[in-house]
Amino acid sequence: MTGAACVLGVDSGGSGLRAALGSPEGAPCAGPVRSAEPVRTGPRGIDAGHFMDLLLPLARDLLAASGGGRIAAVAVGAAGMATLGEGLRAELPGALGRELGAERVALAADAVTAYAGALGERPGAVVAAGTGLIAVGTDLAAWRRADGWGHLLGDCGSGAWIGRAGLEAAMRAHDGRRGGSPALRDRAEKVFGPAAGLPGQLYPRADRPAVLASFAPEVAACAAGDAVAGGILRDAARHVAEAAAAVCPRDAASEVALTGGLIKLGEPLLGPLRDDLAELLPHARQVPAAGDPLDGALRIAGGLAADRLLLPRDARMLSVHRSEGPSTSA
Amino acid sequence: MTGAACVLGVDSGGSGLRAALGSPEGAPCAGPVRSAEPVRTGPRGIDAGHFMDLLLPLARDLLAASGGGRIAAVAVGAAGMATLGEGLRAELPGALGRELGAERVALAADAVTAYAGALGERPGAVVAAGTGLIAVGTDLAAWRRADGWGHLLGDCGSGAWIGRAGLEAAMRAHDGRRGGSPALRDRAEKVFGPAAGLPGQLYPRADRPAVLASFAPEVAACAAGDAVAGGILRDAARHVAEAAAAVCPRDAASEVALTGGLIKLGEPLLGPLRDDLAELLPHARQVPAAGDPLDGALRIAGGLAADRLLLPRDARMLSVHRSEGPSTSA
Repeated sequence: MTGAACVLGVDSGGSGLRAALGSPEGAPCAGPVRSAEPVRTGPRGIDAGHFMDLLLPLARDLLAASGGGRIAAVAVGAAGMATLGEGLRAELPGALGRELGAERVALAADAVTAYAGALGERPGAVVAAGTGLIAVGTDLAAWRRADGWGHLLGDCGSGAWIGRAGLEAAMRAHDGRRGGSPALRDRAEKVFGPAAGLPGQLYPRADRPAVLASFAPEVAACAAGDAVAGGILRDAARHVAEAAAAVCPRDAASEVALTGGLIKLGEPLLGPLRDDLAELLPHARQVPAAGDPLDGALRIAGGLAADRLLLPRDARMLSVHRSEGPSTSA
Repeated sequence: MTGAACVLGVDSGGSGLRAALGSPEGAPCAGPVRSAEPVRTGPRGIDAGHFMDLLLPLARDLLAASGGGRIAAVAVGAAGMATLGEGLRAELPGALGRELGAERVALAADAVTAYAGALGERPGAVVAAGTGLIAVGTDLAAWRRADGWGHLLGDCGSGAWIGRAGLEAAMRAHDGRRGGSPALRDRAEKVFGPAAGLPGQLYPRADRPAVLASFAPEVAACAAGDAVAGGILRDAARHVAEAAAAVCPRDAASEVALTGGLIKLGEPLLGPLRDDLAELLPHARQVPAAGDPLDGALRIAGGLAADRLLLPRDARMLSVHRSEGPSTSA
């Protein structure tokens, strides 16, 4: 191959695959491009073959758009990498070497690419929150994680958590129980129809957490004028801060950031969150996330290509592989 | 047919069908007998044909055991009667008349038979709580109901609610988040294995509420020595009392009772519940449930046979039907 060296970043999640090319410093230079189809999960976890089928056309488009070049390193962030990533770790380094000539490959939990996108390679804590919620932190020696246990065991403060609490308050108002919110009941009936029919709208669905999370913006919209809705968002902010506090290093240079769709709920969440973070993590500087998980993947790939990756290796959170590309194996 | 008139009570739920014969006064005289198979639910709701297939052998066994007799009335309490009972209301009165000669048939929500079993035909409120939770109350003019919305929208204070809160506290301890309970983490790991594997134990299951509820006795067992577990049971008691308060009539003669498997959690729940009911319903006398939902079905059938049923009729909660039996249609 000809052309300058570049790096490939990939972000794989429930809503599909995104990829971009970056300079060896990890700055974006082509893309992002996306496949709307998510990678399949099978009995062996995330399906490495299907991953390659979705990625290769995107990667070739990116190389064509950037005028060609050598891919020095690839970093993949994937939802489920920690628990369902065994197949990816076994097969992707070889496949990315054979098909794209990549010499080095990093495989990361999506929370790790979210971290790298938000804070780069500085110590601190990042809470990645949308439908679900997970916190990861590092002192650059090891990773810590908190929550991310799903809508029944945790994901406290997430979109699904906020939406569920809002719908419970709606049903309480319908029943005349304490803790009910007529405002949230009215919102719920506008979205889902009569309150008594809500169980029939929710329980048959396979994507219940997403259905619950779809109500979170309604709770935020009621928060200014409704004490129950405002209380739900204050409780959610507390949970977000508690997750950050569980993983943030004591290091005085620590930074803390929130990333993901939950930010869109705005001040009803972010106002109380600033106060809670200041109380629970007085030593950590609150910063906005610099970028998203795909930016984080490019950043990790850039560090890998330059052999100066500071983020700590971890079998499940961030594994680094060397692969023989076709130019050397031929 | 020869022999004295009697009544048939039926209780249909997720764990199968139970039936008993009673005197015209509603006192048990044969049974209970049970079918371990639950009645199927299909696109038209609870399957009336399958219900009859399961009930008829039980009814014939009961008649044989009691030396025969005429069935003057049948009362059926069924889980889902309010929302999935259309087929039963359309077909059961005729089928019970044809097959068993029953002249009168009552079809009740299982919460109504739970009420009649617990309080008979006196005004008040009954909270029926096991894996789920529903409260029904009546002033003998109309029914009120509260909660019963399932494990995501409500069932606040139920076994699933308590177990879920206990497992969240276990995962908080695993993460080092605030609000965690090391005692509940240890219990959860004894029951389900390592904490990090708990999502994999729970989410693939179709009976998630039952899995959650299976942990409620562990929370109760920790309550005396663990502040987090004790707090969960105090919060559950509050939710139970709030549901009762939403449906209890203002009538000074009102009684209030808790019925169902939740009682087995004992004093860690029942102690705080006594205090909360005294605070929220100072006018209502707290009584133990006199009997279970099958006793309630017999009680309703007895009232129907004697034409002195005091409990209010309601299209979904308690409907009463007259059917032509084979002796008069021949």
